[in-house]
Amino acid sequence: MSSCWGHNVRISVFGQSHSEAIGVVVDGLPAGFRPDMDELGAFMARRAPGGSLATPRKEADQPRFLSGIAAGVLTGAPLCAIINNTNVRPGDYTEFKDKPRPGHADYTAEIKYHGFQDASGGGHFSGRLTAPLCVAGGICLQLLRREGIRIGAHIERIADIRDRRFDPAEVSERDIDSLCRGELTVIDSIAAEKMADCILQARQEGDSVGGVIECAVTGLPAGMGDPMFDGMENAIASAIFAIPAIKGIEFGSGFDCASMRGSQHNDPFTICGDRIVTRGNNHGGILGGITSGMPLVFRAAVKPTPSIAAKQNTVSLSEKKDAKLEIKGRHDPCIVPRAVPCVEAVTALVIYDKLLDKKKDI
Amino acid sequence: MSSCWGHNVRISVFGQSHSEAIGVVVDGLPAGFRPDMDELGAFMARRAPGGSLATPRKEADQPRFLSGIAAGVLTGAPLCAIINNTNVRPGDYTEFKDKPRPGHADYTAEIKYHGFQDASGGGHFSGRLTAPLCVAGGICLQLLRREGIRIGAHIERIADIRDRRFDPAEVSERDIDSLCRGELTVIDSIAAEKMADCILQARQEGDSVGGVIECAVTGLPAGMGDPMFDGMENAIASAIFAIPAIKGIEFGSGFDCASMRGSQHNDPFTICGDRIVTRGNNHGGILGGITSGMPLVFRAAVKPTPSIAAKQNTVSLSEKKDAKLEIKGRHDPCIVPRAVPCVEAVTALVIYDKLLDKKKDI
Amino acid sequence: MSSCWGHNVRISVFGQSHSEAIGVVVDGLPAGFRPDMDELGAFMARRAPGGSLATPRKEADQPRFLSGIAAGVLTGAPLCAIINNTNVRPGDYTEFKDKPRPGHADYTAEIKYHGFQDASGGGHFSGRLTAPLCVAGGICLQLLRREGIRIGAHIERIADIRDRRFDPAEVSERDIDSLCRGELTVIDSIAAEKMADCILQARQEGDSVGGVIECAVTGLPAGMGDPMFDGMENAIASAIFAIPAIKGIEFGSGFDCASMRGSQHNDPFTICGDRIVTRGNNHGGILGGITSGMPLVFRAAVKPTPSIAAKQNTVSLSEKKDAKLEIKGRHDPCIVPRAVPCVEAVTALVIYDKLLDKKKDI
Amino acid sequence: MSSCWGHNVRISVFGQSHSEAIGVVVDGLPAGFRPDMDELGAFMARRAPGGSLATPRKEADQPRFLSGIAAGVLTGAPLCAIINNTNVRPGDYTEFKDKPRPGHADYTAEIKYHGFQDASGGGHFSGRLTAPLCVAGGICLQLLRREGIRIGAHIERIADIRDRRFDPAEVSERDIDSLCRGELTVIDSIAAEKMADCILQARQEGDSVGGVIECAVTGLPAGMGDPMFDGMENAIASAIFAIPAIKGIEFGSGFDCASMRGSQHNDPFTICGDRIVTRGNNHGGILGGITSGMPLVFRAAVKPTPSIAAKQNTVSLSEKKDAKLEIKGRHDPCIVPRAVPCVEAVTALVIYDKLLDKKKDI
Repeated sequence: MSSCWGHNVRISVFGQSHSEAIGVVVDGLPAGFRPDMDELGAFMARRAPGGSLATPRKEADQPRFLSGIAAGVLTGAPLCAIINNTNVRPGDYTEFKDKPRPGHADYTAEIKYHGFQDASGGGHFSGRLTAPLCVAGGICLQLLRREGIRIGAHIERIADIRDRRFDPAEVSERDIDSLCRGELTVIDSIAAEKMADCILQARQEGDSVGGVIECAVTGLPAGMGDPMFDGMENAIASAIFAIPAIKGIEFGSGFDCASMRGSQHNDPFTICGDRIVTRGNNHGGILGGITSGMPLVFRAAVKPTPSIAAKQNTVSLSEKKDAKLEIKGRHDPCIVPRAVPCVEAVTALVIYDKLLDKKKDI
Repeated sequence: MSSCWGHNVRISVFGQSHSEAIGVVVDGLPAGFRPDMDELGAFMARRAPGGSLATPRKEADQPRFLSGIAAGVLTGAPLCAIINNTNVRPGDYTEFKDKPRPGHADYTAEIKYHGFQDASGGGHFSGRLTAPLCVAGGICLQLLRREGIRIGAHIERIADIRDRRFDPAEVSERDIDSLCRGELTVIDSIAAEKMADCILQARQEGDSVGGVIECAVTGLPAGMGDPMFDGMENAIASAIFAIPAIKGIEFGSGFDCASMRGSQHNDPFTICGDRIVTRGNNHGGILGGITSGMPLVFRAAVKPTPSIAAKQNTVSLSEKKDAKLEIKGRHDPCIVPRAVPCVEAVTALVIYDKLLDKKKDI
Repeated sequence: MSSCWGHNVRISVFGQSHSEAIGVVVDGLPAGFRPDMDELGAFMARRAPGGSLATPRKEADQPRFLSGIAAGVLTGAPLCAIINNTNVRPGDYTEFKDKPRPGHADYTAEIKYHGFQDASGGGHFSGRLTAPLCVAGGICLQLLRREGIRIGAHIERIADIRDRRFDPAEVSERDIDSLCRGELTVIDSIAAEKMADCILQARQEGDSVGGVIECAVTGLPAGMGDPMFDGMENAIASAIFAIPAIKGIEFGSGFDCASMRGSQHNDPFTICGDRIVTRGNNHGGILGGITSGMPLVFRAAVKPTPSIAAKQNTVSLSEKKDAKLEIKGRHDPCIVPRAVPCVEAVTALVIYDKLLDKKKDI
Repeated sequence: MSSCWGHNVRISVFGQSHSEAIGVVVDGLPAGFRPDMDELGAFMARRAPGGSLATPRKEADQPRFLSGIAAGVLTGAPLCAIINNTNVRPGDYTEFKDKPRPGHADYTAEIKYHGFQDASGGGHFSGRLTAPLCVAGGICLQLLRREGIRIGAHIERIADIRDRRFDPAEVSERDIDSLCRGELTVIDSIAAEKMADCILQARQEGDSVGGVIECAVTGLPAGMGDPMFDGMENAIASAIFAIPAIKGIEFGSGFDCASMRGSQHNDPFTICGDRIVTRGNNHGGILGGITSGMPLVFRAAVKPTPSIAAKQNTVSLSEKKDAKLEIKGRHDPCIVPRAVPCVEAVTALVIYDKLLDKKKDI
């Protein structure tokens, strides 16, 4: 079991990279909401393959809704969206069943599923499965905007090339709207150019690079979330790691807090108009698992694409001896750009779910 | 809701810092197991206050078992353990209800609970609530050892003073057994001395410091965990953030992966005797959410104690204006040392829960 | 695992008949509510042993609150209530570990827990564990009354002696208030007398009798509950079977529907003032799992107490041969009377949990 | 939320009567199992419309598997099965949005979903949604048979015409294999003829009839299930009420227990060869929520089809006044026959889920 998530909105993701279709069931969306399908399509396009920095596998990745929507309006019944897999080439992958690719789930899935997993294209572990996540999250993004809540992520870093960070205490809806959403979503377009060079350089060398994504949520009311196991950090972390290749997550000051003094790390409260705010936002908008009303800010580390052109060492499972592996075809030299909307989508799912919890507190 | 966790072993934590007692119900432990109570007591003592580096609040913190155990043996019925709060001084905290302490949950709890939370001593948000977590996790640690699984954490860093890290590909049961478990648990005892100085220095200055804890799990079979939302990272992260003051978590290479090339980050498989292992362990023992059989390694960042001696800025909620706050009494100048067993305990809960899942796969 | 329940309000019940204490953790109750402790005590007294028709085991059964309440008011943190077991005589039960009592869980628990269960007094399977259920449910009853929702149960039948039934379409708060709450809770006090005779007759013969409890919920808004697996019937049934000795549950017309024609069973809608109601209430206030705004009515069958005075046939597990068993001590000749408040309590838990769900729909 | 269920095997059902498709995601099925598709098709056919006693809506109702299966073998990834809705006539139902049909969920869904539900054909509340349940349950039936566990249901009663009951203490795999599976599944074929007459009689009169289904599970090991909220009764009941039109459920002696004495109701244990069994099976194979190793037997009451030909009283929601309604088209005069495989399917889901739990106890 695995691919279910949620307390008030429950999602169940299905599909393999090369199965007939992939998709998601979303149970608990509000009846009466009319998703903007153009906007959803534009959001999906941000995740879709294409562009000079990504894999050339071409897929429209537009969802078809089998249920839960009638005349364009959510009915309250579970929504099922599927995306057909049209560009399937199972032949590309038969080798990996015996020779697991380093950095992929080929080996661990082989053990877990006793050799019966659908290894083709990475099966259920493929990054392609983030497409249904983006359908579900894309709708939640629209629902949240109705409530004045905005979510925006950008590439904070590719290798050692850094974008500016959000000002954690000041980041606003306008900052999210003014993100440069080209092939690489950044605050500072100059950074994007350097990042693009860095990615192309890696591609030319048959290699790949990693990075860091920063995400901000604005417009959150104070008092969302729960103590201990159901805090905002717990919930976001538990969902963010659903995105393949994420290796770490940090909130507010994150790992930098280790080097700070309490006097420096504490964010003093102050009155700002009729609102209570903090000066500084090392707490990342969360105290005791509960939102403070300040922007919620976190960063997630994304590893370099494990599929690289160079010949790699691995083992032959059947022969139980060391072996060489060469991954053919072309792959994203960097998955960070396409992971940006995935981070937004997953965050939207969590925030929307928690927002429903908050309605019960009233 | 909040303080429940688990799929096969379900725990429910209760209590406030100054309520009559704190405790935990653990449902799903195996009948017939005889916990070693001396060992559990020794484990609890590692978390308990005391020592020159910690708060002087003296509490035995030894659990009393109300149910689930008979003649020293688990019966299969839910286990309830309570720890009485004997050294309660509610008067210390009345001020914070109106003037929330920066870096604490006073303000967010005030909003969430509409002013009815038990603010005394931090209430349900107090670090004291990690004691019942350690009771539950301490038993799981013993259960796991029966299965050849060991969990050990150490202080990887206080401020900028670093301990050695575990060798992620080689860390063994023996490394865990040979950790220096003084007031500060480290690999390298020299580091402990410097860390102690750093902490005392902060205390003298009425300030506090943060750090990083590293945790390793050895002896794990390959094939544990599930894809997407129920991977090992998701499960561990969702539980680790239950420990107050955790700001980030990273697995294997963690945030360093951002600067790495795929050719460098991928851990090639190889045959070692009759086992399949990887050279290197950037993947931290997890691929696709599933254990690879390599050591599971992660790090968690711990913020500096928010309770400091210096006068701080805050607001008066009743007067809706800025105010000054001075936190009296003495507090841990660094909570990292006491958080080490908490990280082990929470990790043990997760690993044991996932191990039960794995039994169903067979 | 087992003794946890709930979506928005989560409870975790612990304890054995002869452990130090039994109790419950309730997570998710609303901060700011002040439970009426006298009323709760009176409610608990209805379940407590005593009276001429019940077991003479004397226990105050009054809960002590370890957490979640401060100055009499719910704080929002998990509530833990315990009831000490003061009148414990483990010696009474040692025989049953080897010679399982017919109709009890002795044998099935022996198998499930590999012989390690605490068999004394029925352990975790004892009817005594309904006391913590009544604490949790008793508070929910008070919370529901604030919302205009009332729950009342009565003995519909003991053996073949029947009380009147509620008029399912008309049952009101006033009917619930005017239930005769003597030793036997009924609508018609004449029925109570005959039932008492029937129970005493069984006692004199060293035997026991069963019965049926009917429960009504008034004041429910239309639109509560969910389709398919989370309907009101599913939720109530899943919780009602937590009460030992329940053998069946039916809603509205229940099993009688089998003999009815659709033309007779359908409850036509009609306008009554400004409300939409049905004529008749065969649907028991639930259509498609969702409340219709009519009274919710169900009945539950309670088996005769399995502990009887007569010598019974069983087996010796150690000798693997047939054996005779005589259960000493005195036992309730009929558990139906004490199960009435338990049915109310469990129903209150479910209704309150679902009411919180409904708040999210708005 | 609603249409998700399960602890180890989690299912998520989606679709409306007249949406493009209906379906189910099943997460947690074992990798390596090869479902017999012919057998599954035959099982689905038992639920499908057709025959002289059922609605003439013709649909193949054969599932298409979008994921989770490769080369006919389960891969361990979530299985998604869909069934297209080919014979959709939305025009039939527009009236019911304003004039809710008595006995249907039209009114309660209207309230819950604020008028946005897809009322056409009953939407997500349609009996048609049991088809995906049968896909999921049909696979579980096959999985259980591998473990020697068999599930069989039959019509115990239509109106007042009764089939023989299973002998609860003796019912065997052979009894299940020898059920008469014609249009009406019964033990005694003579009963089937009378039932058919009764149903046809109701149809001729433009009316409908209800009934009772009895279900037996054989081959269960002792020790399955959990106390209190996760007992076998709780789990089965919570799932059985997912089938529309179920009004009650009883286990073993069920409601008859109310009239019995303890001396009569208790099932004495005895040795039979090397097994421990009971004489009699009033306990229905469950004691304390846990299987005893005896056959598990329960009965469920099914109400008469609410769609009848006669003109009925209802209200016009728009005009807020009483109105008349005539339901056109033809409908099953009795849904009991088609509910029989649904009961088997849902039971199989529950039993398989609990069987996985039991594997953890070892």
